[in-house]
Amino acid sequence: MQFNLFPKEVYINRRKRLQELVGSGLILLMGNQESSMNYKDNWYPFRQDSTFLYYFGLDVAGLAATIDAESGATTIFGNELSMDDIIWTGLLPTVREMAEMVGVSSTAPYQKAGKLVQDAQAHGRTVHILKPYRPENSMQLAAWLCTAPEMADSLTLIKAVIEQRAHKEAIEIKEIEDAVSISADMHMAAIRHTRPGMKEYELVAKVEEVAAAANGRLSYPVILSVNGQVLHNHYHGNTIRDGQMILNDAGAENAMHYAGDLTRTFPVGREFTSRQKELYQIVLGSMDHAISLLRPGITFREVHAQASETLLSGLKAIGLVKGDPAEAVAAGVHTLFFQCGLGHMMGLDVHDMEDLGEEYVGYTDTLKKSKEFGWKSLRLGRELETGYVLTVEPGIYMIPELIDRWAAEKKLEHFINYKAVAAYRDFGGIRIEDNFLITEDGSHKLGKHLPKTLKEIEALRLY
Amino acid sequence: MQFNLFPKEVYINRRKRLQELVGSGLILLMGNQESSMNYKDNWYPFRQDSTFLYYFGLDVAGLAATIDAESGATTIFGNELSMDDIIWTGLLPTVREMAEMVGVSSTAPYQKAGKLVQDAQAHGRTVHILKPYRPENSMQLAAWLCTAPEMADSLTLIKAVIEQRAHKEAIEIKEIEDAVSISADMHMAAIRHTRPGMKEYELVAKVEEVAAAANGRLSYPVILSVNGQVLHNHYHGNTIRDGQMILNDAGAENAMHYAGDLTRTFPVGREFTSRQKELYQIVLGSMDHAISLLRPGITFREVHAQASETLLSGLKAIGLVKGDPAEAVAAGVHTLFFQCGLGHMMGLDVHDMEDLGEEYVGYTDTLKKSKEFGWKSLRLGRELETGYVLTVEPGIYMIPELIDRWAAEKKLEHFINYKAVAAYRDFGGIRIEDNFLITEDGSHKLGKHLPKTLKEIEALRLY
Repeated sequence: MQFNLFPKEVYINRRKRLQELVGSGLILLMGNQESSMNYKDNWYPFRQDSTFLYYFGLDVAGLAATIDAESGATTIFGNELSMDDIIWTGLLPTVREMAEMVGVSSTAPYQKAGKLVQDAQAHGRTVHILKPYRPENSMQLAAWLCTAPEMADSLTLIKAVIEQRAHKEAIEIKEIEDAVSISADMHMAAIRHTRPGMKEYELVAKVEEVAAAANGRLSYPVILSVNGQVLHNHYHGNTIRDGQMILNDAGAENAMHYAGDLTRTFPVGREFTSRQKELYQIVLGSMDHAISLLRPGITFREVHAQASETLLSGLKAIGLVKGDPAEAVAAGVHTLFFQCGLGHMMGLDVHDMEDLGEEYVGYTDTLKKSKEFGWKSLRLGRELETGYVLTVEPGIYMIPELIDRWAAEKKLEHFINYKAVAAYRDFGGIRIEDNFLITEDGSHKLGKHLPKTLKEIEALRLY
Repeated sequence: MQFNLFPKEVYINRRKRLQELVGSGLILLMGNQESSMNYKDNWYPFRQDSTFLYYFGLDVAGLAATIDAESGATTIFGNELSMDDIIWTGLLPTVREMAEMVGVSSTAPYQKAGKLVQDAQAHGRTVHILKPYRPENSMQLAAWLCTAPEMADSLTLIKAVIEQRAHKEAIEIKEIEDAVSISADMHMAAIRHTRPGMKEYELVAKVEEVAAAANGRLSYPVILSVNGQVLHNHYHGNTIRDGQMILNDAGAENAMHYAGDLTRTFPVGREFTSRQKELYQIVLGSMDHAISLLRPGITFREVHAQASETLLSGLKAIGLVKGDPAEAVAAGVHTLFFQCGLGHMMGLDVHDMEDLGEEYVGYTDTLKKSKEFGWKSLRLGRELETGYVLTVEPGIYMIPELIDRWAAEKKLEHFINYKAVAAYRDFGGIRIEDNFLITEDGSHKLGKHLPKTLKEIEALRLY
């Protein structure tokens, strides 16, 4: 068995910086446990916690680690294999050998972490933890801390981790480029493989194969559907027909666990219909405008607002909305068509660091997330900085239930031409998505080229 | 969205029978919740609990159900979607509509199940539950029962569920045939796709694609490796070379969630080596003998013992062991080469009902599982009955660490020719596995034909 790791200095330096940022107390970072599927020992594919990966790199279940923010003393906790284990799993490195691979010289059995935590508490020291999202870790932390994990002080740690993980290192950008390029290959396979009469799940199978054949996996469950208006559609049982579009939102997680997250919308048949082309072009125009705005110093909230305004300008041109597009965005008109956010941070998680809290990852003490419909789904609002990696993913989604409700309420009817919108009630949805690194003077699109213009897409449908 | 369901009478009849078998008290069955991967809302593919599927069929997260074993009153508990949910997930049937699909007319919000449970407890009634294997359900049950789930009485329920699920209905056998046939396709793809120089994960990708393209998934993580001696080997990073064998243990879960579980061992190059052929033939002989014994009335423990004896006879013929094979099996000699069990029950779970306890599924009050090395890994020992579905999977595994330990201890050296065994230290492993239904007069091999003789396998490697 071979470990996929950066050079050990990468982890040593990251931990040193974390220690400086946190300054005092004991930092406890939990690795993940195996996750049971339909009985205890039938496991889902193991996924290590991303923050644990960031500081310790070890992609193995059943580990935890502490960093003393004052002394710098660092220990990895885990249990050694028995001969019985070796028969089933083969010979694996010891915990001590694994720890050495990432520059840690102190190791101890897993449950010893609890003792260290309790000793620190007994001496009145702060124990910094991250809020657990896996129930196994919730229960373990509750036992070790002798209190619910929610009660432990962790804001200092949360902010320190975000400060580090939000600014991608060159070594990470290389991995993200790789993950996005694999993701692009997944999309090319789907576009080329599509034929009227197939089932959606046959395309999903192809997408997954490309990820797995590159020693990767999916960074999130594939959204691939002729019902693109359903934002998180994981039903893949439809037969696809000429005249429909496929919305494919799929990304790879590469062998180093960095994510890609791309979306393309393409015709089931050889060509888009003229109505599909019209709306596609509006989404693409919004995307191009958003990309042109990306640079350090602009808030992503502003980019989202301008992208929404561009969408409404386009919808105005075809008679679906009326009035001033900027005023319409201020009133929330765009949220009838674009109910979600323009993008989010991306890295070791596809929604990077979502477990640490969107209010800290995507917003700040002074810029808070809006609670209004549509805006509340914008995961990233803060001012962009060099080294951020994010997605740009505008879309138009005709959700019949939402259109019906707004129309019945005559909501914002001075902006919305409901009679014209009614004709699009069963249109479906379009999303286009690429991934970007914020550079000193703008942005850099990550990964290999993936066709996105109408002409490029239709050229791929010549069969 | 379309639900994959049997006719509602199937579920109604199963529940009626369960009610009769349990007789008194309140039965509480937990459906599964979504399972978080690297942050709360990034989920693993949903897998419903198999017992919940068996009695209620609904493949949806966040449900629970009760059956009053006296009155027969049955309720499904679940929460309705909000408009916000619908935007993300699309319009889904209501809980009431879903319940009607499986013949249940009473529904209530999820947390009401707790009230029903507590009312029953307050009236001194037994609440029957199954031991949870997912931590979300452990925590929920602890809250509802006001006690640790381990404390609740459930043996009556466990035995009733096993009695039903162990005897497969005709409608289930059809689904298992389907799952095994998809599994056979997965194996054919792997055998045909293999070329020296490839990575193991490229073959895994192909295997997964076949399952997904049939609207299925994996019934367990693929074991596919040139290190076949590692029984549960989920590392797929090796480059495969001519002269090596691939051991591929992979099965599909079909759209109705029934499992297949097949293993084949084949050469990376065009042909097996003569030494590989020799051991392959020994394993195949053991398998054929085991299959010939399958019939109602024989214990699977006996089948395992005879299969082990056949293995040792073969190993004696090539000089690895000596003495009387039957005596050698009694002494445990076979466990140096065959450390695991000959097979297990299979159905909605690949190790069927493993969550209910091997001591009840595979053994009885009078036939207890052995605690000895090797024997303790035999999941199924009991007398076979018509309608059981099981796997037969003999193998020879040369585990260097185990050979070294036994050799150093001179363990059973009057039976084992350690000098000869040493030459096989790095041989690897061979397993061959098919799935069977126990019929009134013997057994029926499930699913389409998958080549297993040396000649058949090598014919597939002509490229």
